[in-house]
Amino acid sequence: MSAAPLTDFSRLCVHTITTKPWSIEEATEHYAAAGVAGVTVWRQWLDGREIAAVGENLRSVGIEIVSLCRGGFFPALDEAGRRAAIDDNLRAIDEAEALGAPLIVLVCGAAPGQPLQTSRDQIVAGIEAILPRCQETGIKLAIEPLHPMYADTRSAVNTLTQANDMCERIGDPLVGVAVDVYHLWWDPRLPVEIERAGQADRIFALHVCDWRVPTEDMLNDRGLMGEGCIDVRQIRGWVEAQGFDGMIEVEVFSNRYWAMDQHEFLDKIKTAYLENT
Amino acid sequence: MSAAPLTDFSRLCVHTITTKPWSIEEATEHYAAAGVAGVTVWRQWLDGREIAAVGENLRSVGIEIVSLCRGGFFPALDEAGRRAAIDDNLRAIDEAEALGAPLIVLVCGAAPGQPLQTSRDQIVAGIEAILPRCQETGIKLAIEPLHPMYADTRSAVNTLTQANDMCERIGDPLVGVAVDVYHLWWDPRLPVEIERAGQADRIFALHVCDWRVPTEDMLNDRGLMGEGCIDVRQIRGWVEAQGFDGMIEVEVFSNRYWAMDQHEFLDKIKTAYLENT
Repeated sequence: MSAAPLTDFSRLCVHTITTKPWSIEEATEHYAAAGVAGVTVWRQWLDGREIAAVGENLRSVGIEIVSLCRGGFFPALDEAGRRAAIDDNLRAIDEAEALGAPLIVLVCGAAPGQPLQTSRDQIVAGIEAILPRCQETGIKLAIEPLHPMYADTRSAVNTLTQANDMCERIGDPLVGVAVDVYHLWWDPRLPVEIERAGQADRIFALHVCDWRVPTEDMLNDRGLMGEGCIDVRQIRGWVEAQGFDGMIEVEVFSNRYWAMDQHEFLDKIKTAYLENT
Repeated sequence: MSAAPLTDFSRLCVHTITTKPWSIEEATEHYAAAGVAGVTVWRQWLDGREIAAVGENLRSVGIEIVSLCRGGFFPALDEAGRRAAIDDNLRAIDEAEALGAPLIVLVCGAAPGQPLQTSRDQIVAGIEAILPRCQETGIKLAIEPLHPMYADTRSAVNTLTQANDMCERIGDPLVGVAVDVYHLWWDPRLPVEIERAGQADRIFALHVCDWRVPTEDMLNDRGLMGEGCIDVRQIRGWVEAQGFDGMIEVEVFSNRYWAMDQHEFLDKIKTAYLENT
């Protein structure tokens, strides 16, 4: 069931936040030189840029734009907050359109002053509110379940079961899931729910990294594939058994990697990609 | 469904690790003076002590011994490691018997070099290996599902669903579950699984604290009830709707509380117990 090793970089995508010290211009140049095939652009990397030009520049050097990261954060304690979130997500769709990104990854949000179920209902309402713009533009949305340690403020969607349930409730082919090994590796239901998502054509993204032992920071101590306890190749095998052949996105938040030379880090990413992904 | 507020301390139990700076002798004296009704004794607090005398001392001041914490950590990469774990758990049963504790809480363990399912099978095998001694002594075992952020090294049992499944697989009335709000609050299946455990007479313990926002340390930044985002009273309501009327155990690991005067901290515990539990 484990996937065969990867033998080239034709499916290697890197998130701009993975190489956080690099601007979008630096990432474009250095990813292209390193043979990285795809990029997921975090919205902060577009600040003050002509977004369409960023997209053209990436395509001109042969880099595929995999997704825009991130929309979401729909829950809020008051109506004004929820309205502001919807407006921000509509702006994200505009940005994705300008950039030429076919997909927006949703970190759905949670508001600690209210029950998780209330936040979940607000997430569904938020997605439904922006769906018409998705239908106009063809831009897809990937609900990314986040690890339960982020249930307080980052996401009330914490398992692939919940994300699949939410997709069914919304019932639109433009709404699917992002499978991130860091968030989901511990869940005994993972293979079953990957199959469920696959059967419904809802696997829109695969994010990889590793869970370091010990993990010293809840946010910024992710490891490269092979550095921790996640069997990344097995999870990739489950996803690919469903027909997924899209980009494999390296999304690493790491104070220790951000502190090193980013060219050396990119070399390490490529090695980990071939050896442990 | 939320429980009615607590109006006295007749069900207040404190874990010795909650007031970590106090020895067992200090805890015995100060808990009794404060009107704490019960204690869960962590095994380190028994180091170098005459265990039976510790138990007698606690009972002589009117403190009920709720459980011994903790057994478990059954998984290991090699047979010798698994055998050592079983031996240690047999010693824990001896200690519980000497102390007069009717229950041992199990933090089940996980070994990062092997699949979680392998660790889960080793947990079941470990529990089954010590069951004969439980049957001889009448001492019960509570499987405590731990938050998924501890799946790397502390427990391969991360949801109440899994703990209930494991209890069914073992099928002995001496094996049940500990419901800890910190580990389980995020799980949308929690009310259903509490009911399932209750219907099978398997709710052996209720542990309370809170999830601070933000949480700054994965281990030692727990909050007192009311300081975070967990609706402790609702979860207590679900547990008590199943007929549970046992001790409510305050289990807080907190560098910030351990650094303060422990008498003041115990006052805060009592206030949080009445107001937010």
